[in-house]
Amino acid sequence: MNKIEKLRSYLSENNIQGLLLNSSKNKFYSADLYSSSGYIFITCKNQYVIVDFRYFEEMKEKDIKFEVLLMDKQKTYFDIINEICKRENIINIGFEGNEVSFDDYNNIDEKINCNLTSIDLSKLRCEKSEEELKYIKKACEIADKAFYHIIKFIKIGMSEKKVENEIVRYIKEQGGQKESFDIIVASGVRGSLPHGKASNKLIKANEFVTFDFGVKFNNYCSDITRTICMGIGNEELNEIYNIVKCANEEAIKLLKPGMTTGEVDKIARDIIEKEGYGDYFGHNLGHGVGIMVHEYPILAPGGKDLLLEGMVVTIEPGIYIPGLGGVRIEDDVLITKEGCKRLTNSTKDLINIL
Amino acid sequence: MNKIEKLRSYLSENNIQGLLLNSSKNKFYSADLYSSSGYIFITCKNQYVIVDFRYFEEMKEKDIKFEVLLMDKQKTYFDIINEICKRENIINIGFEGNEVSFDDYNNIDEKINCNLTSIDLSKLRCEKSEEELKYIKKACEIADKAFYHIIKFIKIGMSEKKVENEIVRYIKEQGGQKESFDIIVASGVRGSLPHGKASNKLIKANEFVTFDFGVKFNNYCSDITRTICMGIGNEELNEIYNIVKCANEEAIKLLKPGMTTGEVDKIARDIIEKEGYGDYFGHNLGHGVGIMVHEYPILAPGGKDLLLEGMVVTIEPGIYIPGLGGVRIEDDVLITKEGCKRLTNSTKDLINIL
Repeated sequence: MNKIEKLRSYLSENNIQGLLLNSSKNKFYSADLYSSSGYIFITCKNQYVIVDFRYFEEMKEKDIKFEVLLMDKQKTYFDIINEICKRENIINIGFEGNEVSFDDYNNIDEKINCNLTSIDLSKLRCEKSEEELKYIKKACEIADKAFYHIIKFIKIGMSEKKVENEIVRYIKEQGGQKESFDIIVASGVRGSLPHGKASNKLIKANEFVTFDFGVKFNNYCSDITRTICMGIGNEELNEIYNIVKCANEEAIKLLKPGMTTGEVDKIARDIIEKEGYGDYFGHNLGHGVGIMVHEYPILAPGGKDLLLEGMVVTIEPGIYIPGLGGVRIEDDVLITKEGCKRLTNSTKDLINIL
Repeated sequence: MNKIEKLRSYLSENNIQGLLLNSSKNKFYSADLYSSSGYIFITCKNQYVIVDFRYFEEMKEKDIKFEVLLMDKQKTYFDIINEICKRENIINIGFEGNEVSFDDYNNIDEKINCNLTSIDLSKLRCEKSEEELKYIKKACEIADKAFYHIIKFIKIGMSEKKVENEIVRYIKEQGGQKESFDIIVASGVRGSLPHGKASNKLIKANEFVTFDFGVKFNNYCSDITRTICMGIGNEELNEIYNIVKCANEEAIKLLKPGMTTGEVDKIARDIIEKEGYGDYFGHNLGHGVGIMVHEYPILAPGGKDLLLEGMVVTIEPGIYIPGLGGVRIEDDVLITKEGCKRLTNSTKDLINIL
């Protein structure tokens, strides 16, 4: 199914004759419109982009299969939508209930002469097209390059912030649009914070340092984590490193389409639990990656969703010991016909910077 | 009024006995909690922060006048809120209707045993405290430094992207948290796009270049625009520059507390209209700046809101001629007892880089 067919499949499934999109992510996915303003409207017969003068010319020139309509003072968004509904006999409209605020919903409900139903579109973007994969792969490639760059850049005595700033600078120099989220650089005992954003803490000899960052390329994200050691480390963290690496590798080795999200989570979690660290892996194994850095599906304990060919997900086990530090190793993988393929290819051997 | 008194004033005004905050901006403003998860709950007698284990210890250590409660599997957010409501006889709760999604509203409405009312909190943060001003001033100071840095850095033949990347790098080097929005670098004819994000276009001799960027410092924003010329320019753009500069300076000179937002917009707009460029100034004169780079009030034609001492607003007139280019000059100003005070202090004399 192409994107428009996918969108249209929501009509019959939900007994609606129109689907109204307002989120930037779904407007970009559907019609290459990345903006918080404007609407996409999909009906049984047609598909429309409705924008103001700032986007009108640009959208008309794009090679998209949408009719582009201009909103202005004479005709509001809702006037235009009401006209379409009248012409195409539309009674029920679906909207993005988890994207539209309560106040906006009331405003739309008042102005549109149709019944509104909240539609869950979280699965819309989960199976990636060849074109989408091209951008995700590029975002992963730049992330890998940034990792190899940073292990040459980092020195004992540098602040975590300085390392973060260099990652951001390098990503942009390599043609990445920007970082896909606020970068995590967590050294020493801060490594036990799964979301330890880079701080002014200085990196000390023998500390483990976890980098978790991603790249945006044409609005598609990558997401990678590696932990390195600024010396020879210590026995417990070295052991933990090997357990986490094994959990990451086993999950990637065994992941196949048709498995549930919970089954894959369990592969990694069982390894960590068997080694006695189950209580120290307090988050999910992974999540989908695409236009959003976190999207459907979630690979969590007990998860029942099926993993499908074409999905891109992260595999990111970790162990976090308060007062000692932590290790996380994260790859992005594409689910293929027979298994999965890594899109981030940075080494997972422990790097000791001596 | 301190922040808690301000928050509590919404209770009596709206006939509610509790106010539930979920937006990062208002949670940060109220209780120094910058996170999309967790709730703040203000009642007639008390004020609560409700967070999960990730934030609990950190929030308890903060010097804030809130009771910190832990949400976990045994007690959800809604269990905790229901307990408080029962104990304090709360029947009506206000919530942020323009921040809570329609789906989340329905979930909250189902789980909380009270009536919910959407409350408009847009004015909550408009008058800045001394402490807030300290952060905004620092964000403005770094923005000024970045402007002076970039006019030494920029060269004919550089791409707009390269200039953007240097601004981001420099902001972080100077201790800024990050850029406060995607940076605009619009050169030559691209200058006629009021929101022309930096592209791969190379900057050519004699072109005008508009930079619009801001800095975040402790989650407070600045927002500045300057237009420079990469040579001697041309007669029309030089003339336009002087008109825009005059519009910016007159609005700043005459702005006083007690004026309406529309009156200040009109000062600048009249100057541009009198010179025959009224149709080429297609946006508002300015907006409030604080935790959000765009916040209440909006300085727009016909605006009736009163400008008050302690507000920080932008003054940003512009003229945009399709096919030729554009000029915009933007300062952040603090409204004082008698007038206003510039917080961005970069020169507004036209800089010609020869």
